[in-house]
Amino acid sequence: MINQLKELLSEEQVSINETILEQHSQDESYHDVAKPDVVVFPKTTEEVSRILQYANTHKIPVVPFGRGSSLEGHIIPYDNGITIDFSLMDKIIAIQPEDLLVVVQPGVTRTQLNQALKQHGLFFSVDPGADATLGGMVATNASGTTAVRYGVMRDQVRDLEVVLADGTVIHTGSLAAKSASGYHLNGLFTGSEGTLGCFTELTLRVYGIPEFETAARATFNTVEEAVEAVTSVLQVGIPIARVELVDEESIRQVNAHNETSFAEKPTLFLEFHGNEAGLAQDVAFTTELMQDAGCTEIIFETDTAARNQLWTARHNLAYSYIHSHKGKKMMVTDVCVPISELAHAIHHAREQLTKYQLAGGLLGHVGDGNFHALVMVDMKNTDEVARANALNEAIVEYALSKNGTCTGEHGVGVGKQKYQRKEHGAAYDVMASIKQTLDPNNIMNPGKIIKVDPV
Amino acid sequence: MINQLKELLSEEQVSINETILEQHSQDESYHDVAKPDVVVFPKTTEEVSRILQYANTHKIPVVPFGRGSSLEGHIIPYDNGITIDFSLMDKIIAIQPEDLLVVVQPGVTRTQLNQALKQHGLFFSVDPGADATLGGMVATNASGTTAVRYGVMRDQVRDLEVVLADGTVIHTGSLAAKSASGYHLNGLFTGSEGTLGCFTELTLRVYGIPEFETAARATFNTVEEAVEAVTSVLQVGIPIARVELVDEESIRQVNAHNETSFAEKPTLFLEFHGNEAGLAQDVAFTTELMQDAGCTEIIFETDTAARNQLWTARHNLAYSYIHSHKGKKMMVTDVCVPISELAHAIHHAREQLTKYQLAGGLLGHVGDGNFHALVMVDMKNTDEVARANALNEAIVEYALSKNGTCTGEHGVGVGKQKYQRKEHGAAYDVMASIKQTLDPNNIMNPGKIIKVDPV
Repeated sequence: MINQLKELLSEEQVSINETILEQHSQDESYHDVAKPDVVVFPKTTEEVSRILQYANTHKIPVVPFGRGSSLEGHIIPYDNGITIDFSLMDKIIAIQPEDLLVVVQPGVTRTQLNQALKQHGLFFSVDPGADATLGGMVATNASGTTAVRYGVMRDQVRDLEVVLADGTVIHTGSLAAKSASGYHLNGLFTGSEGTLGCFTELTLRVYGIPEFETAARATFNTVEEAVEAVTSVLQVGIPIARVELVDEESIRQVNAHNETSFAEKPTLFLEFHGNEAGLAQDVAFTTELMQDAGCTEIIFETDTAARNQLWTARHNLAYSYIHSHKGKKMMVTDVCVPISELAHAIHHAREQLTKYQLAGGLLGHVGDGNFHALVMVDMKNTDEVARANALNEAIVEYALSKNGTCTGEHGVGVGKQKYQRKEHGAAYDVMASIKQTLDPNNIMNPGKIIKVDPV
Repeated sequence: MINQLKELLSEEQVSINETILEQHSQDESYHDVAKPDVVVFPKTTEEVSRILQYANTHKIPVVPFGRGSSLEGHIIPYDNGITIDFSLMDKIIAIQPEDLLVVVQPGVTRTQLNQALKQHGLFFSVDPGADATLGGMVATNASGTTAVRYGVMRDQVRDLEVVLADGTVIHTGSLAAKSASGYHLNGLFTGSEGTLGCFTELTLRVYGIPEFETAARATFNTVEEAVEAVTSVLQVGIPIARVELVDEESIRQVNAHNETSFAEKPTLFLEFHGNEAGLAQDVAFTTELMQDAGCTEIIFETDTAARNQLWTARHNLAYSYIHSHKGKKMMVTDVCVPISELAHAIHHAREQLTKYQLAGGLLGHVGDGNFHALVMVDMKNTDEVARANALNEAIVEYALSKNGTCTGEHGVGVGKQKYQRKEHGAAYDVMASIKQTLDPNNIMNPGKIIKVDPV
């Protein structure tokens, strides 16, 4: 296999170096690791097509790999085989300000793109915690703090060049801003986690940098009050750009790892984008609504440095948990529920943390009803692992009972595979039939999202 | 068949009345008509499931029918069979203001929904010309004047209850505002035009009625200048709610059929939603950008009556063309191109109207790059029909050559079927394989979107 791959690509694009294999055996999750047999580094769509044709003919499992920052074991090759690392396909192909579009290769990261967009007065909106590759972000339908205003990854995808399991190259969309032509393949392939094909080129939507931005921090006595405040803001249609809930426990973590001394209470981090006059009015109205809901303090930060400090603290929260719990691994729950159920769901999650005697923070993108319990687990302590798994399960079951989803933004990977039938019911069979049709040999990231019985 | 259907439903829910068959033989397009063998009027999901099980067993074609306002022959049953009319499934099941969601049956129309939402301070954003049913609007991925701000129909779909070809009932989504779980079936079924299943319940996103609205009418000497103005407004990120281009010819039509005396020049109809202070700043900036692009006059209408007159005139444009050309049928082209290509594309369309000696208006949702040439055709004049078809073809070919789409919002139906392979290339085979997998007997609206070779 190694020799044949070297013939299809070149000597130096194929690696069985132990360190390289190890690097491709894990993501940032707590899931068991597994090494691929070989890692390949294609440079062109044609090379990816050749790899897949070869793998499909020989029924060899293939896992596409961006940066390994996934959180549910998406890129762990449990059936070994070939890992395709897209790090050499990292070019920004075109920036089209008039069309508010960019064309990039899948290995480009979101900060790399934003760096390049800045001089055009544009930005790319989706911001998961990690500096993931855009290919990986499309694969998991990533989102983050700005989804409440700008949408998730799927909302940014205008077209994908995809290499299918048999090596066929397709385009899933066009450059038109809207279309009622054909079936919506952009949506189907976004979030497919490498199970239906490999992305080799992405055409994505970007936005003009807003004229004005304001950030705020609002403190509450209870999580319920904070959620109530968010609900009011959304219902009156204030186009808030970010609204993040950080609970007491997580604020303590923030203060311990940043130069901040925020009040250690349930807190909303807010951001507004717009024109100056409009923001002033939004901010005044929001303040009123926050106070009505029981906000004890709201502090606005208009200067860039203070705003950056606020958001850096929020973005680094997961990493600061990791750094302060050496030797442990991070388990993050990721349910999303209807907003009307959010306060109850967060309350329930806190109860479960207590019940299972786990220390952990609760935080979330509350404008979307998406929240995380963040728990550091000693993977050698089987009892702790069992309790953490039970916690995750209890939180998922609760969300599903409220017509929510087992994953708001991290994706299915292996971690949420077992909930797929329960969440989707008979629709799971439809998904499985699509997988079967597009990847009959089940070579594309097998075991992720859809469990196919071995033939 | 009639007797068996009467047993599955009830006597009065099955009709072979000639007038009823006739009503279900045509939409609002110029396409050839064809009658179903029978029209059924189910009242429940279970009845729809029974009908499809029966039809699938006996391989009888099935066409779902909302109001017949489609524009590409979507609901014309060219293979006869059973038409399922959803007019008895017209209940608004739930309005959930806190979640900004509604649950409706497919036969509810958009004005019916907006009427009910008003008292909650909410509105449903998508506004095609016709007062279509929401089921039909999901089926065609309809949009209209507000897509530039609020998105198209697909962006509003949170969950669909769908009866598949074999009678299985699935849910394509959940109530969560975002999800990274499973494949994106919401997106796949939205825009599937009845070729993959029948919708029996829709969960849709709604919005808070904006605090403040302003409308404007901006006049230009050329279409190019008008498009340039729109491009600038979008690029600086002004969140315009509507921006419609109406050309000279169409303004003449507007003035002839409304109590208006608008300057007969290329005109933009604009609308802004937001808070009062923010809008004032948006309006001032927009005025500046419009004037920079060559706008000769811009008039703002803040009072509701004047604003309504403006938008009523725009919305009734297609119908006023129809009423003033008795005996003719309307052919509307519907391409969408990248914004950077829009001015050229509209210019090209005007040239084609001249070349083919056809009178027609050009109008469009220019914020999305979507525009229509509206031509009244005497279907008995074979030469005129041929010229109109040639015009449509030339406009589509031009859009495809610019990486646009053959249909921005009207859908494929039969009218755009022939362009599907050209537009989607190898992705068309992926679409066909999905159709084949989910509807192996090809009973669901056969001949629309995907052409399946007879077995």
